Amino acid sequence: MQKETLYVIKIGGNIIDDEQRLAAFLYSFSSLKGKKILVHGGGKLATKLAADLNIPQQMVDGRRITDAETLKIITMVYAGLINKNIVAALQMHGTNAIGLTGVDGNLILSEKRKNSSIDYGFVGDVKKVNDGFLLSLLNNDITVVIAPVTHDGQGSLLNTNADTIAQEIATAMAAHFAVNLIYSFEKTGVLTDVNDENSLIPLLTMPLYKQYREEQKIFAGMIPKLDNAFAAIASGVNRVTIGKAEELEALTEGRTGTILTHE
Amino acid sequence: MQKETLYVIKIGGNIIDDEQRLAAFLYSFSSLKGKKILVHGGGKLATKLAADLNIPQQMVDGRRITDAETLKIITMVYAGLINKNIVAALQMHGTNAIGLTGVDGNLILSEKRKNSSIDYGFVGDVKKVNDGFLLSLLNNDITVVIAPVTHDGQGSLLNTNADTIAQEIATAMAAHFAVNLIYSFEKTGVLTDVNDENSLIPLLTMPLYKQYREEQKIFAGMIPKLDNAFAAIASGVNRVTIGKAEELEALTEGRTGTILTHE
Repeated sequence: MQKETLYVIKIGGNIIDDEQRLAAFLYSFSSLKGKKILVHGGGKLATKLAADLNIPQQMVDGRRITDAETLKIITMVYAGLINKNIVAALQMHGTNAIGLTGVDGNLILSEKRKNSSIDYGFVGDVKKVNDGFLLSLLNNDITVVIAPVTHDGQGSLLNTNADTIAQEIATAMAAHFAVNLIYSFEKTGVLTDVNDENSLIPLLTMPLYKQYREEQKIFAGMIPKLDNAFAAIASGVNRVTIGKAEELEALTEGRTGTILTHE
Repeated sequence: MQKETLYVIKIGGNIIDDEQRLAAFLYSFSSLKGKKILVHGGGKLATKLAADLNIPQQMVDGRRITDAETLKIITMVYAGLINKNIVAALQMHGTNAIGLTGVDGNLILSEKRKNSSIDYGFVGDVKKVNDGFLLSLLNNDITVVIAPVTHDGQGSLLNTNADTIAQEIATAMAAHFAVNLIYSFEKTGVLTDVNDENSLIPLLTMPLYKQYREEQKIFAGMIPKLDNAFAAIASGVNRVTIGKAEELEALTEGRTGTILTHE
């Protein structure tokens, strides 16, 4: 029996930061027929709030350290402000959505990252996704909107990368659905020249990805996203597409963006 | 057939502000057997954040005006910081909880308050509670934790009084359960002398309430809470108790606090 399609869509930070583009995206997301999950990043709002509150942001090797005060900011901005406003917009468009973090319904259990050299603070790596809970919501025609905050089961919230959450959710749901995972952001897809939208790679196979990476033809910032994406395909996700948030419908249909395949 | 008991428990702001008392309350809430819903207020965290961000708080007749910037603060603090930390603590205690606002699953639809003389801003009065959605969560053994933010169905979040939310939730669930509504806060119950914990009124009937109110024996700040409580009883809620958060178990059993009855 053919499995029903489930869309797992990640919306990137640059769109979140732009009120009009976010509104347009949410309208097209709302118009998408069928079961769907939206995972959102945080954008620059958390950084701005930390600056306004004079909370210094420690960076190590270009990565933010999530200390206790920064975790509070992230919880307020991601789980509160962004998540609830996205859900309000979807409700306005007639999509019955629910906004969740990983702590809600024990949706995503994670563990604090251990690293012998760097203490990233309250950052969590995903251990387990509660697929049964997601399934019961989706089967009640509820669209799930996930903020990138998880928990360790010991009372602590943890900051978790939204791209990784999208991949973990997609992978966990692959047992129940034909999962169509879409990473949508401000660019047309994976580019060989980050400044040229015409340098789109329409189809990226695993061997081609390895080759481009060795030749340093792929923008370094894309590599964690692509590693996540290929991990999803390896774990049974049907299709992964990377592309422009404004072209959501075309992305879901495979008409634009970069489509990733294993071979 | 006797209906199953549902506890609807409101936890007041003064407890939210005190980390240790909140932790103790959440432990006793978690220990409570059966189906339960927790409604939390906001405490002083939102006021503090507004001050830290230099967002002036307008007050009219002792009531806060919720302008657009204040609504953002409330959404961050109530729906994000407080709600998610409460849920994380409950998960730690083995209670599978979910944190929601009124926009999630269209749980509480409200309308912006109209007042010919005062514009309260983004303040919502409850129109409709989605009891079916709550029922499906409770029947899946999920404990619901509600932040006092609702929505108008037109894309806007609205600030809504937590006491009122507790009453509206209790009333809506009275069709399905024997609802035991508890307003828990820092005092022993309804007092005839606000500074004397020994002046507790153990049983407050509607006629007695009217009499005390006329005699101005009840602290003015209690009146909206009591009006809400009596409205709940009039609408089929089984029992309403007002008392100390530290005595939660005794409150649920009617062994302490002020019990309200219609006659």
